[in-house]
Amino acid sequence: MPVDTLADLLGREMTPTALEEAAQLAAGLSDGDLVGLVERLPAARASVLLQTLDEGRALAVFASLDAPHQAVLVDALQESYAVGLFVAMDPDDQVSLLDELSPDLAEHFLAQLDPRARALTSLVRAYPRQSIGRRMSPEVVSVPMTDSVDEALARVRLRLQDAETVYTLPVVDEGRVLVGVLGLRRLLATDPDTPVAEIMRPVESAVVTEDAERTARRFLDRKLLGMPIVDADHRLVGIVTVDDALVITEEADSQDHARQGGTEALGRPYLSTAVGDLVRSRIVWLLVLAVSAALTVQVLEIFEATLTEVVVLALFIPLLTGTGGNTGNQAATTITRALALGDVTPRDISRVLLREARVGALLGALLGSLAFLVAGAVYGVQIGLVIGLTLLSVCTIAATVGGAMPIIAQKLRADPAVFSNPFISTFTDATGLVVYFLIARAVLQL
Amino acid sequence: MPVDTLADLLGREMTPTALEEAAQLAAGLSDGDLVGLVERLPAARASVLLQTLDEGRALAVFASLDAPHQAVLVDALQESYAVGLFVAMDPDDQVSLLDELSPDLAEHFLAQLDPRARALTSLVRAYPRQSIGRRMSPEVVSVPMTDSVDEALARVRLRLQDAETVYTLPVVDEGRVLVGVLGLRRLLATDPDTPVAEIMRPVESAVVTEDAERTARRFLDRKLLGMPIVDADHRLVGIVTVDDALVITEEADSQDHARQGGTEALGRPYLSTAVGDLVRSRIVWLLVLAVSAALTVQVLEIFEATLTEVVVLALFIPLLTGTGGNTGNQAATTITRALALGDVTPRDISRVLLREARVGALLGALLGSLAFLVAGAVYGVQIGLVIGLTLLSVCTIAATVGGAMPIIAQKLRADPAVFSNPFISTFTDATGLVVYFLIARAVLQL
Repeated sequence: MPVDTLADLLGREMTPTALEEAAQLAAGLSDGDLVGLVERLPAARASVLLQTLDEGRALAVFASLDAPHQAVLVDALQESYAVGLFVAMDPDDQVSLLDELSPDLAEHFLAQLDPRARALTSLVRAYPRQSIGRRMSPEVVSVPMTDSVDEALARVRLRLQDAETVYTLPVVDEGRVLVGVLGLRRLLATDPDTPVAEIMRPVESAVVTEDAERTARRFLDRKLLGMPIVDADHRLVGIVTVDDALVITEEADSQDHARQGGTEALGRPYLSTAVGDLVRSRIVWLLVLAVSAALTVQVLEIFEATLTEVVVLALFIPLLTGTGGNTGNQAATTITRALALGDVTPRDISRVLLREARVGALLGALLGSLAFLVAGAVYGVQIGLVIGLTLLSVCTIAATVGGAMPIIAQKLRADPAVFSNPFISTFTDATGLVVYFLIARAVLQL
Repeated sequence: MPVDTLADLLGREMTPTALEEAAQLAAGLSDGDLVGLVERLPAARASVLLQTLDEGRALAVFASLDAPHQAVLVDALQESYAVGLFVAMDPDDQVSLLDELSPDLAEHFLAQLDPRARALTSLVRAYPRQSIGRRMSPEVVSVPMTDSVDEALARVRLRLQDAETVYTLPVVDEGRVLVGVLGLRRLLATDPDTPVAEIMRPVESAVVTEDAERTARRFLDRKLLGMPIVDADHRLVGIVTVDDALVITEEADSQDHARQGGTEALGRPYLSTAVGDLVRSRIVWLLVLAVSAALTVQVLEIFEATLTEVVVLALFIPLLTGTGGNTGNQAATTITRALALGDVTPRDISRVLLREARVGALLGALLGSLAFLVAGAVYGVQIGLVIGLTLLSVCTIAATVGGAMPIIAQKLRADPAVFSNPFISTFTDATGLVVYFLIARAVLQL
């Protein structure tokens, strides 16, 4: 594949002829391939690749990278070249990049903008991080509700070059208060003399200070192309487009996905992340989990006498804890997703617990009877009974707890993914072992 | 909240006055709130709610539900009403719904369409499931490359009512072969006499038979608004819009997310899924995992003598297997995400394995030395040494295996999420135990 050829080529020493060749290969690739390549190459080679592209493409490729990765490349690029890319970006993208740069460098970059651009960028930058205001574009085409359709179209024509979008047109009153929205399509479909006020639709909007992720999810959930952003007095201040919403949710999903696996998101492509950073992204969680897992050692110590008496009990420890962990994770995964999709809300907690308890009991009954038969045949009826009963109880507890955790997290205004699957496994390990040995003592009369 | 009031109201007996009240409450809610409510209510109540809405809103709400859930509601709705909704849907959405209905019912619904609509729907329905052709809209506005800008605009005006989108305009040659693409914005910004051929852009397209998910991901990755779909001869046959792409990826994400937790996706809202179906979505995986976990029992049996001699070794089993599982899951989670984002491709496998081995060794060294100090202090230097060395080896193995699994899955053209986290835990449990007891025997000279 030409992509791979180019990747290898960039690995070699960059003679003028090699650069020439690279430029030709790159010219033949789609923007998508180039983005993918830049994301996989070490910063040094990626920056060489960027500089072989003509301005327009280099900007398109650079703009579609995550801000943290853009920052890495900025360090590797010639400063003048990096500044050139920065100046050409949209205000909201500029802000995301500035957030990743050192304060001095950020100031230096800002200073390169012409006054109007700097004003727009500083305006966006003034909103709190995590807020949607920080991710919106201030370059919005608004239509006064007193306009007729052709007056509105005239306004659109004036802004075709600079506006973030012309497909979603917020309608405002004389006080710039948002009163409705119009699609360009509808505008074109309507008789020119019709007053805009007659054809505008009810508008789905967000306040600048709202949480960026929640707003983006609502945006995508409603399948919008653009969402007007308003200030506290409902005055129009900007607009968010579908590409912004996609970037925001992708960042958030990386976070959640990482948390589910008990690690922190890298915020930049895997292959261009240093091994030390990978370790850092995992060690904290791993330590927390290992320390809480020490609890299981305590538990087993309590029952050491029982263990010494019936060593065979030790054989089933990984099977029982493992199954408990799996059942808990299944419940947690299902509920976390249901919460994310809005299928379940915290006020449904009692319904969820009831259902999960029943599901867990059913799963436990199935696995338990199976285990009773198998273990019973191999290690005798008593052991079979212990294993069977333990699976029944452990599955019931694990499913209920696993289903409750994400809801409790959300009730505590924490990310449901915080109680990650590893966390639930560790929890069910400890409780499962207690149940196991209590049942064993009872059944084996120890 | 009015939403909750409405939900409760729908729970009661539906007297004419109650219906009246419900209709008024619903009228005050945004489409988004209504969708959320419909997704949480049992089918019977949801269908009542739908029928209190005016036609336009009912359609908007119904259309934004997943097809499987739509099918559930169709059963609960009066047939005439359900048919009314179906007829008003877009061809691609009609096909998704038909796929969920019984063959007879599907035929009956199809028969209700007027000939032209039926032709369009049957056309989409003719493409294989899982293909993007099945999810595209055939109602696309194409522009001949011989057109001038104002001729092109005239075509757009003719199709404002029925076309799926007018913002992305595929350009075709006399043989209807796709040669480029034009944004409506650019069209409006250009002098009317300019030939379209001069301003069209290189086009990102997909072949009807391509995999729907892969195409949708490319679509969103490239931040497009519309992607032309072509046949094997590169002739334009339809278009996919951003809302289609979002629905496709959301379905796929639910699948992957479920797999990660070792369960099957429900395909419909959690609270309106029967407990039996929940059990069915989990039992298979749970059984597979439990059976493979039986392997750990075998392993421990081999070392039963060692266990009887040094029962204290049993105390650390959950800690060691748990930590191994966590380390493996961290690696698997990171790599699965990197593959999904295209940051890593299967040809990077050797680089990934090398990095994960180093990361695992570092994590193991940190945890191991900590464990050596603690366990050494409590249970003596020898035990401390065994635990420390085991953690070092287990973490190294687990990270490497966990990192390799998703890539191997992809190489085998399987879903990387198939080797779910529970699967990896079970695998690392068995290997970890072997390592544990081999080290124990060596250190304790048993």
